[in-house]
Amino acid sequence: MFTSRPIGFVSSPYKDASEVPKGLGAKHEADGVLKILPEFELGLTDIEGFSHLIVIWEFDRSPQSRKQGFGKQGSGTHGVELLGTPPSDNRPHGVFATRSPRRPNPIGLTTVELRRREGIELHVRGVDMLDGTPILDIKPYLSSIPSEKLRRGWLAEAEARQKCSPSDRS
Amino acid sequence: MFTSRPIGFVSSPYKDASEVPKGLGAKHEADGVLKILPEFELGLTDIEGFSHLIVIWEFDRSPQSRKQGFGKQGSGTHGVELLGTPPSDNRPHGVFATRSPRRPNPIGLTTVELRRREGIELHVRGVDMLDGTPILDIKPYLSSIPSEKLRRGWLAEAEARQKCSPSDRS
Repeated sequence: MFTSRPIGFVSSPYKDASEVPKGLGAKHEADGVLKILPEFELGLTDIEGFSHLIVIWEFDRSPQSRKQGFGKQGSGTHGVELLGTPPSDNRPHGVFATRSPRRPNPIGLTTVELRRREGIELHVRGVDMLDGTPILDIKPYLSSIPSEKLRRGWLAEAEARQKCSPSDRS
Repeated sequence: MFTSRPIGFVSSPYKDASEVPKGLGAKHEADGVLKILPEFELGLTDIEGFSHLIVIWEFDRSPQSRKQGFGKQGSGTHGVELLGTPPSDNRPHGVFATRSPRRPNPIGLTTVELRRREGIELHVRGVDMLDGTPILDIKPYLSSIPSEKLRRGWLAEAEARQKCSPSDRS
């Protein structure tokens, strides 16, 4: 397998995971900057034509990464939680059915709106990463699944339960 | 940084990159199976409630990975192409504005439709990975950017050029 290396870092208003909006109905509208390393600037050519980008990043401060020691190889299973209860529900779900940071590979994914580019700085809206998060890759957002074709499993059920009984949240 | 490890492997009809549909209008409707390693089965709990999944995988047979030697650390720059001409255009674009495999981190991303789950096997539609591709992560597809809000830069321009002059393709 390969060892990932940062292509840049996120500048975000969130300094601590507790500050990131979570749970049902959480909105991600924070402005941030994707600061790309100068050696990769050529790779940004024509990116400004896209309204939305997919950012792939590392959960470098997840329980998993912290326990393993950031900067070392993260190939152990310490800190991984295959079944966990997300902030948006009071029932446990499999890690691959959630966005939990306690994943076997600590890879995060966020879709952001590209507002403007200034050289190696991509000014974006919709960050939910912590300040200083290492960026692994950026891809153009090319197409969407129509919402009428989406089923959203436990998340839709949790939303429905909340609507029926707003006080039924732990 | 962390060293990624596979959580499973893709079973795909494509044995070679030349077989994967590419270019403007290419459709990804092939059926495949995401075979998850038994040690991670618990992490699939409740995944069957989602109609679509985001699969994050490794370009293990990209020029970059091959030249570096698959199985070794892929942290060099050999095989990375910061500016390249994609199959869908005859003009070069930055790697972060394309889905090229010659990326600094050889990470691929595909949205698939989940047809059914059989234990550790996720039967999906829409694979564009090669047979045997290592899977790094799976996330539920939760929401879409409405198509009327999307701008798709050089790709939209290439499509428009093709419509105006179908023979103007190299």
